[in-house]
Amino acid sequence: MSFAAWAVSSLKEAGFPSIYPVNPRHSEAFGLTCYPSVSAIPGPVDHVIVCIPAEKSMDVLDDCARKGVMSVHFFTAGFSESGERSRAELERDMLQKARDGGFRIIGPNCTGLFVPEVRLTTSDRMPMQPGDIAFMSQSGGHSQDMPMHAGPRGLRFSKVISYGNALDIGECELLEYFTGDAKTNIIAIYIEGVREGNRFRSALEKACARKPVVVYKGGTTEAGLRTAMSHTASMTSSIKTFQTLCRQANAIQVSDVQELIDVLVALSFARPYPMGKGIAVVGVGGGPSVEAGDRMETVGLELSALSPDVQAQLKRLLHNDGGIFTNPLDATNLIYPDVIYNTLKVIGGSPRIDMIMYHMGFHPVTRWGGGIYSSDFFLRPASEALHKSHEEINKPVLMALGQASDMAGMDEMLKVQAAFVKEGLPVFHSIEKTGLAMARVVAWWRRFARD
Amino acid sequence: MSFAAWAVSSLKEAGFPSIYPVNPRHSEAFGLTCYPSVSAIPGPVDHVIVCIPAEKSMDVLDDCARKGVMSVHFFTAGFSESGERSRAELERDMLQKARDGGFRIIGPNCTGLFVPEVRLTTSDRMPMQPGDIAFMSQSGGHSQDMPMHAGPRGLRFSKVISYGNALDIGECELLEYFTGDAKTNIIAIYIEGVREGNRFRSALEKACARKPVVVYKGGTTEAGLRTAMSHTASMTSSIKTFQTLCRQANAIQVSDVQELIDVLVALSFARPYPMGKGIAVVGVGGGPSVEAGDRMETVGLELSALSPDVQAQLKRLLHNDGGIFTNPLDATNLIYPDVIYNTLKVIGGSPRIDMIMYHMGFHPVTRWGGGIYSSDFFLRPASEALHKSHEEINKPVLMALGQASDMAGMDEMLKVQAAFVKEGLPVFHSIEKTGLAMARVVAWWRRFARD
Repeated sequence: MSFAAWAVSSLKEAGFPSIYPVNPRHSEAFGLTCYPSVSAIPGPVDHVIVCIPAEKSMDVLDDCARKGVMSVHFFTAGFSESGERSRAELERDMLQKARDGGFRIIGPNCTGLFVPEVRLTTSDRMPMQPGDIAFMSQSGGHSQDMPMHAGPRGLRFSKVISYGNALDIGECELLEYFTGDAKTNIIAIYIEGVREGNRFRSALEKACARKPVVVYKGGTTEAGLRTAMSHTASMTSSIKTFQTLCRQANAIQVSDVQELIDVLVALSFARPYPMGKGIAVVGVGGGPSVEAGDRMETVGLELSALSPDVQAQLKRLLHNDGGIFTNPLDATNLIYPDVIYNTLKVIGGSPRIDMIMYHMGFHPVTRWGGGIYSSDFFLRPASEALHKSHEEINKPVLMALGQASDMAGMDEMLKVQAAFVKEGLPVFHSIEKTGLAMARVVAWWRRFARD
Repeated sequence: MSFAAWAVSSLKEAGFPSIYPVNPRHSEAFGLTCYPSVSAIPGPVDHVIVCIPAEKSMDVLDDCARKGVMSVHFFTAGFSESGERSRAELERDMLQKARDGGFRIIGPNCTGLFVPEVRLTTSDRMPMQPGDIAFMSQSGGHSQDMPMHAGPRGLRFSKVISYGNALDIGECELLEYFTGDAKTNIIAIYIEGVREGNRFRSALEKACARKPVVVYKGGTTEAGLRTAMSHTASMTSSIKTFQTLCRQANAIQVSDVQELIDVLVALSFARPYPMGKGIAVVGVGGGPSVEAGDRMETVGLELSALSPDVQAQLKRLLHNDGGIFTNPLDATNLIYPDVIYNTLKVIGGSPRIDMIMYHMGFHPVTRWGGGIYSSDFFLRPASEALHKSHEEINKPVLMALGQASDMAGMDEMLKVQAAFVKEGLPVFHSIEKTGLAMARVVAWWRRFARD
């Protein structure tokens, strides 16, 4: 299926009110009237999605200018990123045409706009309830993959904008816009290159002073940079300069899309943000507990020791052989909802503990009577117990769900994830990822709250 | 279900020839005659699996001594790892009893033996075909999770031994045994503590001189170490000493179970092992290509530049807009089996390239006509094309499959994984993990092959 067909069917499914397919060879598409040109459409047209070969770009823009549209999104690739001089010249002519015609260009070489509030999307699998996260992405793939993978984790978006080669609307203007956007509380960025260094520095500082900003910079190595150049014609003079800029502005830096989602989950649901680094880890299994011990220290969090009083309370609560009554805390009866609730209350009351992680593994089918986490015995009562203890201790309760490796494990993991997300809990996909996201959020919050 | 019941039903399902449940309160269990004691069993008994409370240990061992068994595995926990002095003393008595009775003890506080060749297992979800990987694990959980998660990746085992508190049989004896075991070509270790430092150093050096040895050390931080102490009563005087020992012996060190599996996959299927660090990355998508560029350099591999001649051949093969004809190589027609074959042949012929990664994303349902990777159009012909090109270029062809986030994506990922595993290809679960495993194997191989 072409991108054009995909966009039309996605808009239709999303309930976008007025869609006009344009193709001179058809009179109907997806049950809608198809027009030979943009200017042939009756009534006003705000936004045009273009996916025809690059050579025809100027004809389309003439057509759009005649119609008096407001914005034109070019999915089409093969412009300056191709490295060919004639295509870079074509881009310049397109920009002049947009200036003359009084409209704006998004792209080229991108997937354009996703604005759930007005049902505007080019994919039918995005989370369509509006939220407060804005995402500006220089990669079209990431602009769709991120929200799709983030949806089941409970993340919702105000606007997602894929801006590709940034011919007209670029990173600075978008960042300035989101900083002032009342519907955006968190700004996420995937960026390969910066064109106006000083303007970007200023925009980033202003954004970071008002909202959490999470930045995934593609092309942080020589090889990555070479690829970024061919991907979206991006130039970054110095990787180190960019990273320093982010650090100075207090932007949260991540290294891939999954890490970006993890930090957004922490920012959205790990409330109230912890000022301290003390984390308590609870769950079943000695191996995962030892791993948690190593990983938490490696990412920069602190497995604060539990006081003798807290330890004594836990021993009474969890008395069983094979358990570990320190931090991390390992006991087989940590699968009973009332035990979970009481344990979290006891640990959460300690001033040394700033947040609590509960970890779970999803094993192929039924290791030692597994499948228990999605059972009636566990899932609803445990979700409610976790929600209630979170409310009462008023510290983040973090859910670290292990990766599944078969369909039964995945089914169980998704059920557990959905139940926890419904209770407003932050869900991560490994012990390490949980710690890494929280370490980043704590470091950001200590500076953000102080300034 | 108790561990005892689980073990009996698993042994029965695995087809283990002679199983004797022992429980004085029952006369039948799982359709088998149940005996009041070990010594009441008619005929010889080789191995006993014990899962009764610690207090009754000496009675059971008396019973085993009377019967003249060869080995006793204690699943039971609550011994020296509890930190209680009386339990440490009990362990000493048990050891003396085993010496007097002429039998060996495995554990306590572990899941014991998994030997597929003789159908001996305590879980019904292990990969039951025998293979050439031995795994000795101080954690019972890891000893079952690792093979379960590794099975679908094509890994098979000679013996898996969970040894817990290492009262009798410990890390040194196991390592010495696997070094000489003709059925073991690769040794994997999860270890929390070492008791006899000099003997372990010598055993590790001898093992590493003959076979690849992969070590996951639990407790590499203060917090992890404190937890390991409570988990299996392990003491490690110095973390740095242990890591130096591994480095000197040329053992491959990893940081969790998933990384352990990744390295075992590389050792088993990324053949012939590359002596150089040059990696070529191919697949669809600019974002993943930029990520691959960054990640490969970070892990220490080299994205060698393609020669002008190779680039010209690729442009003819892949001519399309939006593609990136460098390394990483990004082109939408890299989903056609014949294009994949020809591309790998061209790139694989370059002396600068030591291995090739093909990356794939699994998106929620059908992004841009997704689901294509599990379709008849792609899966079988592509698997065969990858297999054929691997054979012809005689360099590792590495499959980097992205993480799925819904059931449809997981279903597709598992189908693709199964097809690639069947062709003997190494399958990893992210671009970064692929690079990390290969960087470790290359570093190991450069020293192993030289010595």
